[in-house]
Amino acid sequence: MIKHFLSLSSLTPSEITALLDRSHFFSQNYRNPDKVHHLLRHKIIANVFYEPSTRTRCSFEVAAKRLGTEVVNFVPENSSVRKGETVYDTLKALESLGVDGIVFRHSDDHVFDQLKNRIKLPLLNAGAGKYEHPSQGLLDLFTLKEEFKRLEGLKIAICGDVKHSRVAGSLMVAAEKFGMEIYLSGPPSLVPKSQKLFVTEIPFDDALPKVDAVMMLRIQLERHESLDLNQESYHRDFGMTPERLGKMKKEAIILHPGPFNRGIEISDELVEHPQSRIFKQMENGVYARMAILEWAMGQGN
Amino acid sequence: MIKHFLSLSSLTPSEITALLDRSHFFSQNYRNPDKVHHLLRHKIIANVFYEPSTRTRCSFEVAAKRLGTEVVNFVPENSSVRKGETVYDTLKALESLGVDGIVFRHSDDHVFDQLKNRIKLPLLNAGAGKYEHPSQGLLDLFTLKEEFKRLEGLKIAICGDVKHSRVAGSLMVAAEKFGMEIYLSGPPSLVPKSQKLFVTEIPFDDALPKVDAVMMLRIQLERHESLDLNQESYHRDFGMTPERLGKMKKEAIILHPGPFNRGIEISDELVEHPQSRIFKQMENGVYARMAILEWAMGQGN
Amino acid sequence: MIKHFLSLSSLTPSEITALLDRSHFFSQNYRNPDKVHHLLRHKIIANVFYEPSTRTRCSFEVAAKRLGTEVVNFVPENSSVRKGETVYDTLKALESLGVDGIVFRHSDDHVFDQLKNRIKLPLLNAGAGKYEHPSQGLLDLFTLKEEFKRLEGLKIAICGDVKHSRVAGSLMVAAEKFGMEIYLSGPPSLVPKSQKLFVTEIPFDDALPKVDAVMMLRIQLERHESLDLNQESYHRDFGMTPERLGKMKKEAIILHPGPFNRGIEISDELVEHPQSRIFKQMENGVYARMAILEWAMGQGN
Repeated sequence: MIKHFLSLSSLTPSEITALLDRSHFFSQNYRNPDKVHHLLRHKIIANVFYEPSTRTRCSFEVAAKRLGTEVVNFVPENSSVRKGETVYDTLKALESLGVDGIVFRHSDDHVFDQLKNRIKLPLLNAGAGKYEHPSQGLLDLFTLKEEFKRLEGLKIAICGDVKHSRVAGSLMVAAEKFGMEIYLSGPPSLVPKSQKLFVTEIPFDDALPKVDAVMMLRIQLERHESLDLNQESYHRDFGMTPERLGKMKKEAIILHPGPFNRGIEISDELVEHPQSRIFKQMENGVYARMAILEWAMGQGN
Repeated sequence: MIKHFLSLSSLTPSEITALLDRSHFFSQNYRNPDKVHHLLRHKIIANVFYEPSTRTRCSFEVAAKRLGTEVVNFVPENSSVRKGETVYDTLKALESLGVDGIVFRHSDDHVFDQLKNRIKLPLLNAGAGKYEHPSQGLLDLFTLKEEFKRLEGLKIAICGDVKHSRVAGSLMVAAEKFGMEIYLSGPPSLVPKSQKLFVTEIPFDDALPKVDAVMMLRIQLERHESLDLNQESYHRDFGMTPERLGKMKKEAIILHPGPFNRGIEISDELVEHPQSRIFKQMENGVYARMAILEWAMGQGN
Repeated sequence: MIKHFLSLSSLTPSEITALLDRSHFFSQNYRNPDKVHHLLRHKIIANVFYEPSTRTRCSFEVAAKRLGTEVVNFVPENSSVRKGETVYDTLKALESLGVDGIVFRHSDDHVFDQLKNRIKLPLLNAGAGKYEHPSQGLLDLFTLKEEFKRLEGLKIAICGDVKHSRVAGSLMVAAEKFGMEIYLSGPPSLVPKSQKLFVTEIPFDDALPKVDAVMMLRIQLERHESLDLNQESYHRDFGMTPERLGKMKKEAIILHPGPFNRGIEISDELVEHPQSRIFKQMENGVYARMAILEWAMGQGN
């Protein structure tokens, strides 16, 4: 059976826990070729990014190379897409070329629904539409678990454009599976009402003393240019500032999926503060993606 | 002696047959690193594509990696070309860098004439101008031979913009060498008169019952925008439709070099029909290109 | 301690000599995997080019692959840079991904000052601003030393846009360290006055009989479009022509960092003249960059 990695919601808690355990293994051994380089040796993956993304593409690429896998970068804009080829036909062509997996990003929310039963090799969701970004979700869970040695009962605030954030989407899915509590804050038009019992909409400053971690979201100016967001007032109302950090528990941490806007979502001087795990998240992303690649393409599949 | 792979016309039938035999070997063993990964291990090729092409570039890249060869992608638009460098100087620079072969595509029909005696490492033609695309020609021959266990006496219809098709050009060269008969169909202004005895211009519907395979060509809108081609009337007059497939022999096959326009050259529902070999051609392209790379860069050269 | 390769000026003559010796070793062994492929095996470098450059990027890429190192190409224009990320944050992200070195080019003269104490892995300067291009400087020194078996006492003319040339900048730094004499020629507005004792501004034709080598610089039209440079008069006044070559010593050589403008800085027929080392410089660039990569990332660091 083909093991697509499309969403956290389609995985059981024990499958996710197994991925987190392997992420931990890779965090200890990723620079030890004897322990990791043979795991996916001689495989080839294709990176297919219809939306640009430095971090996610490079993160998958480094993860693959550490595991001995070759990477072919397919850049849609330099390609047959100009000639009007459909996404399905492009991916089917890559399948025909005999690659072993496809790491795929697209702006369409539902693109995988049309693909998952028709593409006969693992598809790895590297971000689709507004709702799902499961490899980011996994690295966020891994970062939390490494920090607190558990997920159950953790309280997480998510602040910003929750409505359009696939990072928030994947984190909320995981929260339900692992019994975390979620507090949502941000501009009212960007924070959806939730019926979920474990989700609470709350003013940002009220959430701060309660939580173990705050996930700051990037204001994605390219997604809602019509919105008249003032950067200074956004920073004042919804940014992570030294004053707000002071309201948090001493052991609570700051998360951000990046790329971040210094001085908007987060004060410049907090990006590398001892309570920030922002660059640690990027590091953990490689371990999580090694686990994902191994899960989808490793022996026994 | 440097072994450039520039055209099928410069190869003898027995050289082509040897390449087809190796393509078959690779079709059986390409996922078996023990049998193929050492063949061009530690070599480096440069992909130099002055015209974009997903499939051909990625196909050569996958073929190279399966053989243990590294790939450097040179993207002319991001490079010295902007600064006015000539093609010869760019390729001479890559030669100086010590790469072991250059996979090269350009819009100029005669670009290789100026290069082949001056570049001192294998040049592999990945498509030049309007006339030659010999790696596509080889994969088409391989697809036919795998299907019919012979080439001699096969009857092939080529339908569409024959005049500007390097796929058709390479196939006609091969047809002469191997005693195949070619039927040409399409809009009269796009089907050249041929003096060759083995070539017949014929209405498409008359060709269908006679042939073992139909090669549908892509309407390359970017090549003749001035032509006032109506997509619907093109599909009706020259497209592969279920009705036309019904006129073909049961064992005859449909070919298309891709990327294809669904609903123009070929009906949507025929792309993956049991008699279609369109995605099989893409798969076979990797085996053919492994054979080409080995021929040009392998031991004994 | 992290070994950044930022400038020739920060290296001692004995460090540079050691790099030249290793460059020589690589010139003898670069196609012998048994001697070189293990040296940086399983490492990963990121190429980060904010300014396009075919030769330098591909040269580092080939050098890395010969040493067994994997390469991740980060293209700023396809990336978070569009979203406003700073250079520091981009490089810190790559550091977090666990790459082992960053090959970096940027248009800002002082970009490394802000980065060198904050990025915790080797940064390799592949060209910054107008002043430094130390890997080019090293390959130029290597080319001179291979030719003349010494550097001390060599006399080098540099002709063209000296003022904006990072090639000239790095060469002058090296000249001071190794006791070479430099003659500067070119359009008066593009040749800076120097206080250095080993530097002389001189009309080009007067320099020719004195020197062991002439470094012709590219007229970088993109850098000073306002200048009304006439190509014909430039070639007549400052180009390397057969007549000017006749004024040089028989054993003197022509250098050019490339890409060159045939018919402007250099006559078409001189590019591959027996006294030209232009393509040899490109070849030597791979050996010099193998030495640089080994120095920065090899064992013992």
